[in-house]
Amino acid sequence: MRIGVVAPGGPVAPGLETRLAAVVAALPPHARPEIRFHPQCFAASGHFAGDDALRAQAFLDVANDARFDAVWFARGGYGSFRLIETVLPRLGAAARGKIYLGYSDVGALLGALYGAGIGCCAHGPMPIDLDRPGGEAAALRALAFLAGDDAALEPAAARHAPAAAFNITILCHLIGTPWLPDLAGHALVLEEVNEPMYRIDRALGQIAGVPAIRRAAGILLGRCGAIVPNDPDFGQGEDEVARFWCARSGIPYLGRADIGHDADNKVVRFGVW
Amino acid sequence: MRIGVVAPGGPVAPGLETRLAAVVAALPPHARPEIRFHPQCFAASGHFAGDDALRAQAFLDVANDARFDAVWFARGGYGSFRLIETVLPRLGAAARGKIYLGYSDVGALLGALYGAGIGCCAHGPMPIDLDRPGGEAAALRALAFLAGDDAALEPAAARHAPAAAFNITILCHLIGTPWLPDLAGHALVLEEVNEPMYRIDRALGQIAGVPAIRRAAGILLGRCGAIVPNDPDFGQGEDEVARFWCARSGIPYLGRADIGHDADNKVVRFGVW
Repeated sequence: MRIGVVAPGGPVAPGLETRLAAVVAALPPHARPEIRFHPQCFAASGHFAGDDALRAQAFLDVANDARFDAVWFARGGYGSFRLIETVLPRLGAAARGKIYLGYSDVGALLGALYGAGIGCCAHGPMPIDLDRPGGEAAALRALAFLAGDDAALEPAAARHAPAAAFNITILCHLIGTPWLPDLAGHALVLEEVNEPMYRIDRALGQIAGVPAIRRAAGILLGRCGAIVPNDPDFGQGEDEVARFWCARSGIPYLGRADIGHDADNKVVRFGVW
Repeated sequence: MRIGVVAPGGPVAPGLETRLAAVVAALPPHARPEIRFHPQCFAASGHFAGDDALRAQAFLDVANDARFDAVWFARGGYGSFRLIETVLPRLGAAARGKIYLGYSDVGALLGALYGAGIGCCAHGPMPIDLDRPGGEAAALRALAFLAGDDAALEPAAARHAPAAAFNITILCHLIGTPWLPDLAGHALVLEEVNEPMYRIDRALGQIAGVPAIRRAAGILLGRCGAIVPNDPDFGQGEDEVARFWCARSGIPYLGRADIGHDADNKVVRFGVW
């Protein structure tokens, strides 16, 4: 298994590559993947890990290289949406046979790849999760998943397949663009972080108001972490708000899912593999 | 001129009614409108000025009452989107002959009314602007506009009519829902407040990525106020970002407009009156 790491949003520090190598070195020899960080991961241009052209080229370098089995996104931040329109038409045959793994901002690109039927997309841990307490377990879970271990999968999403998982805000910003995949019949698995409740409510209201999304099989709600205090108190938690919008829209509410911006984040496969 | 004030999002303090009355009392007698605050404006239910049913009923009370010439939204906050799906089918003939005025969160409802061809919608100051330094001028501008004074109008938007104006984030959350109006051929006037640059960029990227919005006549960029610091510095201002997405999408960039979350906020009429 050869894994290429690129950063379509924000950059990572060079030390991350070394720390990930140490995690891999602790695996049994037969289970050790070869992991290559593209130098672009460490570039910086304002907010981004290099300008749009550099980030797009790095992604294409790895996605179009048949020697890599998987593209593992180094981290989120913001920036993958800016690449979609230019990279999609430039992905060749080698890009179609790969796994693409990440979450958060990277969900924009995963959604677009899934919509275009390119590769096998999955929502799950990234190298940057090594910065979290317990992050080694998240990295190992991602590696186990890439090696084919279904124990890494989020169980409710696996049971309700086909599924697709997104950060709530990132999904909102895909809506109405040509890069929102067809989610009819899917369990839509959603998570959020660092937003006040009124924004979570507002975002779920949009999602539930989209006619195409009303054809989803249902919503599975992941964790909404580090909710920013609402002034005045919103009066409802994320579970009540999700139930409200599901009832309003007729989308079945399927309960909670074990994903989120944290070390416990399980893997959700987009579609049926 | 009889004006009814309702609050589809957050509540206002009772003192606001008195302060607005003092502003009106300073006008010449023939120019004084009658302004009635619906009691719902002062209700509270968590984040909102009363629960959804109360806010929807207050809006319908005033919109469907032929004695009122205009519905003036007291303030934004968050909440008008939650009312759209229930109030639109309940608006009668009296609602069609009215002016609807407000901005910020209220833009969701204005957009939906405009899309449904109900009334004359306008983006402009609200009673809550009296809380701003210089807010009396904003309130007087709104009243002059409601009395038919075109001097209150944002000049570039008036020149490029038909136009429509939105808070950037609020417009994003209408996209993909049945309540996004047809903006083909319109000058789209946009403003933002209290967001970091990466979110302004992300939101404009979505707006520019929507095929229906790519048929707009162009984008007029209002003020982006109180921009939250971006870490690291984003490296571009709102003008550069708007130009970038216009160039990417083929939407003409029409320059700056004199609107924003501030006392200088001029009035933009939706469509052609």
